[in-house]
Amino acid sequence: MKVVALAGGVGGAKLADGLARCLAPQELTLVVNTGDDFLHFGLKICPDLDTVCYTLAGLANPETGWGRAGETWNTLRALEALGAPTWFQLGDQDLATHLERTRRLAEGETLSEVTRFFCQQWGIRHRVLPMSDQPVRTIVETDIGDLPFQEYFVKYRFEPSVRGFRFEGIAQATAAPGVLEALADCDVVIFCPSNPWVSIDPILAVPGVREALLRARVVAVSPIVGGRALKGPAAKMFAEIGIPPSAQAVALHYGSLLKGFVYDRADVAEEPAVRSLGLRTLVTDTVMRSPADRRRLAEEILDFARRELIP
Amino acid sequence: MKVVALAGGVGGAKLADGLARCLAPQELTLVVNTGDDFLHFGLKICPDLDTVCYTLAGLANPETGWGRAGETWNTLRALEALGAPTWFQLGDQDLATHLERTRRLAEGETLSEVTRFFCQQWGIRHRVLPMSDQPVRTIVETDIGDLPFQEYFVKYRFEPSVRGFRFEGIAQATAAPGVLEALADCDVVIFCPSNPWVSIDPILAVPGVREALLRARVVAVSPIVGGRALKGPAAKMFAEIGIPPSAQAVALHYGSLLKGFVYDRADVAEEPAVRSLGLRTLVTDTVMRSPADRRRLAEEILDFARRELIP
Repeated sequence: MKVVALAGGVGGAKLADGLARCLAPQELTLVVNTGDDFLHFGLKICPDLDTVCYTLAGLANPETGWGRAGETWNTLRALEALGAPTWFQLGDQDLATHLERTRRLAEGETLSEVTRFFCQQWGIRHRVLPMSDQPVRTIVETDIGDLPFQEYFVKYRFEPSVRGFRFEGIAQATAAPGVLEALADCDVVIFCPSNPWVSIDPILAVPGVREALLRARVVAVSPIVGGRALKGPAAKMFAEIGIPPSAQAVALHYGSLLKGFVYDRADVAEEPAVRSLGLRTLVTDTVMRSPADRRRLAEEILDFARRELIP
Repeated sequence: MKVVALAGGVGGAKLADGLARCLAPQELTLVVNTGDDFLHFGLKICPDLDTVCYTLAGLANPETGWGRAGETWNTLRALEALGAPTWFQLGDQDLATHLERTRRLAEGETLSEVTRFFCQQWGIRHRVLPMSDQPVRTIVETDIGDLPFQEYFVKYRFEPSVRGFRFEGIAQATAAPGVLEALADCDVVIFCPSNPWVSIDPILAVPGVREALLRARVVAVSPIVGGRALKGPAAKMFAEIGIPPSAQAVALHYGSLLKGFVYDRADVAEEPAVRSLGLRTLVTDTVMRSPADRRRLAEEILDFARRELIP
């Protein structure tokens, strides 16, 4: 069974990890959002790629879901003493990733190549692809002005009210090598329970991706459970855009791209509404509290896809 | 008494510190070599400026003379685990300096402005100026090819045999704001016991500096003691260029720029040779093992200048 999973940050990384525990390396390709990437202190930082890779490599901080386990903060404290901006949490170990990525990019490697190198170093055997090797910047349009995603998310703790989104550079971006090929040659595509607006939508906006998905079997996993996001601003964004946050709202957001939809038992009351969209559905426990949960959810989704979607 | 001191790395920083302990802030300007500066992992690193500033601020590692006291190496270890180049010792606290410098330069500040900001943050009250705000790169021409200074010095541990030096970008560089003014308006200029070839010569090569020095009272302190350099490749460089390393060789190197010369008691046998150059001389203990040594040597040099050079 060949699977492509689209993922953003923490929630996406958890399901990606579950899938990697169920599927052989040649059966799984992960396509990761790079719209959150930014330059900070001259370093190229790719938060979602790092979260996915650290999680797959077993290096992630289990408490936060992002950053590294056993992290230290000596550089950050020295930056603070210098009066430098410290709104983005730069751990000492994490910094090495940003430094080496920046160095390799400056030497002419592509982001795909750097990511492949990191995966080798960290013992990650499944394929992890950035959505694009060209820079794309997710801009959150808010009541206090346009904010690059990391500033909105970290510096302003997603407090400003959202009016819309745009992905700067997306028209000039091309899908990273392997992305369109993997989408064209897979049995199922899984949208991980990542933020639809700022984690999955940037990937869908990469030229060629949406067209490839129209010919694929796509299953989305709702990141909205009980009307709330497990983490981050997804529910708040739906509400501020004028859509009551719900599992059905997620399914409607992706619209005709979907063939299947996975949502939480907490939202079982939405069953008639979701079913009215004409989708195959799986209602289960989608909240991943432990590595065992990740694997169990991944297995259920793969079984569901085999049973209900693949002829 | 108004003093300008030209300094490179560790030896220069020690005398600079001694001078700062003897002179009021408005009496001392330090002009620091930036020919060693380089880009590493996308960060702008200024080894001599950092050594001088850390030393003046009391932040320097007393064992090495460079880097910071109580330094930790977590990022460097993570770089090593990633297979990244680790020949340059990047400490966690030190990294904060490079990150914030890089960030401020990218925002349009000059190196002078960044240095002034750091001095404020670190409580340094004497004026520290980079020799130039434009990048100058010291290239060491060796038997294994041309090497940027840090690669020659750190990566190759100054093992290659030296054939010559050049300072890339020097013709386009201008003295940093305040440098020529300080040289024109001082009672004495002190060449700290830094490497003549790669610490002091780059400063002398900045357009306008040599001309300003011809109108000044210059005292050089020999970094060669007993035919050897206390630290680094100065003696080795003299020998490879074809000049037996000695105090007199240092005085001859600076030639007609000098009015006074300070060298070590270990070289008292050179007295006739040095005196034959027509210089005022001070023979004393020039090796600075403790902060008290720095202050004592600085006081002796200032007394010598007052007594012998200033009308």
